[in-house]
Amino acid sequence: MPFENRITQLFKIEYPIIQAGMVWVSGWELASAVSNAGGLGIIGAGGMYPNDLQSHIQKIKAATSKPYAVNLPLLYSDVQANIDIIIQEKVPIVFTSAGNPKTWTAILKAAGCIVVHVVSSTSFAIKAELAGCDAIVAEGFEAGGHNGRDETSTIVLIPMVHKAVKIPVMAAGGIATGAQMLAAFALGAEGVQVGSRFVCSNEASAHPNFKNAIIDAKEGDTQLGLKSLAPVRLLKNDFAQAILKMEREGASQEQLSMELGKGRAKKGMLEGDMQNGELEIGQVSAMIHATIPAAAIVTEIWKDFTMGIEHLKSLPVSRSF
Amino acid sequence: MPFENRITQLFKIEYPIIQAGMVWVSGWELASAVSNAGGLGIIGAGGMYPNDLQSHIQKIKAATSKPYAVNLPLLYSDVQANIDIIIQEKVPIVFTSAGNPKTWTAILKAAGCIVVHVVSSTSFAIKAELAGCDAIVAEGFEAGGHNGRDETSTIVLIPMVHKAVKIPVMAAGGIATGAQMLAAFALGAEGVQVGSRFVCSNEASAHPNFKNAIIDAKEGDTQLGLKSLAPVRLLKNDFAQAILKMEREGASQEQLSMELGKGRAKKGMLEGDMQNGELEIGQVSAMIHATIPAAAIVTEIWKDFTMGIEHLKSLPVSRSF
Repeated sequence: MPFENRITQLFKIEYPIIQAGMVWVSGWELASAVSNAGGLGIIGAGGMYPNDLQSHIQKIKAATSKPYAVNLPLLYSDVQANIDIIIQEKVPIVFTSAGNPKTWTAILKAAGCIVVHVVSSTSFAIKAELAGCDAIVAEGFEAGGHNGRDETSTIVLIPMVHKAVKIPVMAAGGIATGAQMLAAFALGAEGVQVGSRFVCSNEASAHPNFKNAIIDAKEGDTQLGLKSLAPVRLLKNDFAQAILKMEREGASQEQLSMELGKGRAKKGMLEGDMQNGELEIGQVSAMIHATIPAAAIVTEIWKDFTMGIEHLKSLPVSRSF
Repeated sequence: MPFENRITQLFKIEYPIIQAGMVWVSGWELASAVSNAGGLGIIGAGGMYPNDLQSHIQKIKAATSKPYAVNLPLLYSDVQANIDIIIQEKVPIVFTSAGNPKTWTAILKAAGCIVVHVVSSTSFAIKAELAGCDAIVAEGFEAGGHNGRDETSTIVLIPMVHKAVKIPVMAAGGIATGAQMLAAFALGAEGVQVGSRFVCSNEASAHPNFKNAIIDAKEGDTQLGLKSLAPVRLLKNDFAQAILKMEREGASQEQLSMELGKGRAKKGMLEGDMQNGELEIGQVSAMIHATIPAAAIVTEIWKDFTMGIEHLKSLPVSRSF
């Protein structure tokens, strides 16, 4: 094995690189490519009807013999139906997010699943550990998509969560390269969850227009919006600018909900409507310059991570004080 | 020397740990304590009249034979008077911030100063390099006090700035510990600028009420406000909550300026009015649990930084792919 720590041992993977479950972006094709490359691929169940999810699980089983996971946002009404399918299909690893881990963790663990919960604060990390989760993803303010209310960034969040829980912590938010992965490890993480970078992979189901918009994105081109509903980091297209303007002008939750409407995320990320769609992506979009195979992303991040360690080893540090 | 890189060589210091220049907080006492401990202490000229600044410079010269710096925000009307004093007193190192480095860098360098500019984006880093600056501080969204409009966090900003300029980069924002310093180095920084942590030092001129409020601060207790004027990260006291509420309700720049008024920062940070004062502090306030001597902060950060390197060296990483 190229590496061993609590995360690679827990998931039985080669590299502690986890591809984030992403609505409309990470189906079985992306997830199986990442798992086959030695990372952990995750099917994003958000936006999937239960029979869609079942189909993706059956396809990933055919496409890889390696471990994989399903990410299940707990805020939708059909959670029970999705949990039933996850258990029936014997999914080995489940990442839950956007909800309370207390309700579902015991049920999933009783069925033999490894359970990880995604949090954006230390207090929720502690709750997830108490709920029996095997590991935590702690996600900083710079992450794409749904985001925490405290706006704590990765460099501050990870050491605090690492100190507060005994279970292993994976870092998310602002991680697209091996140098950023190494920074996360310096902060106490034992794995990284990478989202935005994998949107620009050949196997992601994101629309080519969305992939190209990410490649074109510059610093400052994303912003956290919809803070009064549920904070979400978006690429600043016409839709996002309209929302941000409404918020600056003091719009109510009702006005924002009406502007958001239904199906915005699908319209943007899957169907490629770059003006009117909702485009969930992280600040690292400014560092993404090409769409390449998912396996090449895993290899590049790992290579740069190991080179970063060599660089730090070479620093002329004396330990005398 | 315990360490050598471009930053320690440029400033002729032992540890690449820079204490941020902070209005009402970092006078000659704090700056000389940090410089005497082997880091770089900075007198924050913000809020000082030219004769105050001169007095602090003369006192630091008497208190240390080590290099020190002055931080000069370029947005005030008396910049010329402060520059004259800096040159007259032969201050060895000047950190400029909050303004255009083009105007003043050549004048300071012609007078023999080492000049560093503080930026929050890659484009300004490039401008500072073109203006002739010797190094850059790149400051992320999580930092206390004045902050960038793009809201780019440290883990995303540092690798981009590092890639964009040839001069050495110091990281700021979210750095209070050796682990966070190591993360910054993994991202390409060659030094760190630490602010909030030094507010809770014995030698800082911050009011004891302010130091205690930082020690009590929890995750999510700071927020970026005054975005339509000049974004600033504040501890959420009565004043900050009032400002944030006004912003949510769509207040104009004029209304916000009127609420802000004059002297808020002095009232809060120096005079200790915890309800009505402006309290500039970073997200790492949630990680600060005691007020200790500045020299002990330098030593602890350096010790944890070197221990972090030892930890990374011990990771069982194979470089084979």
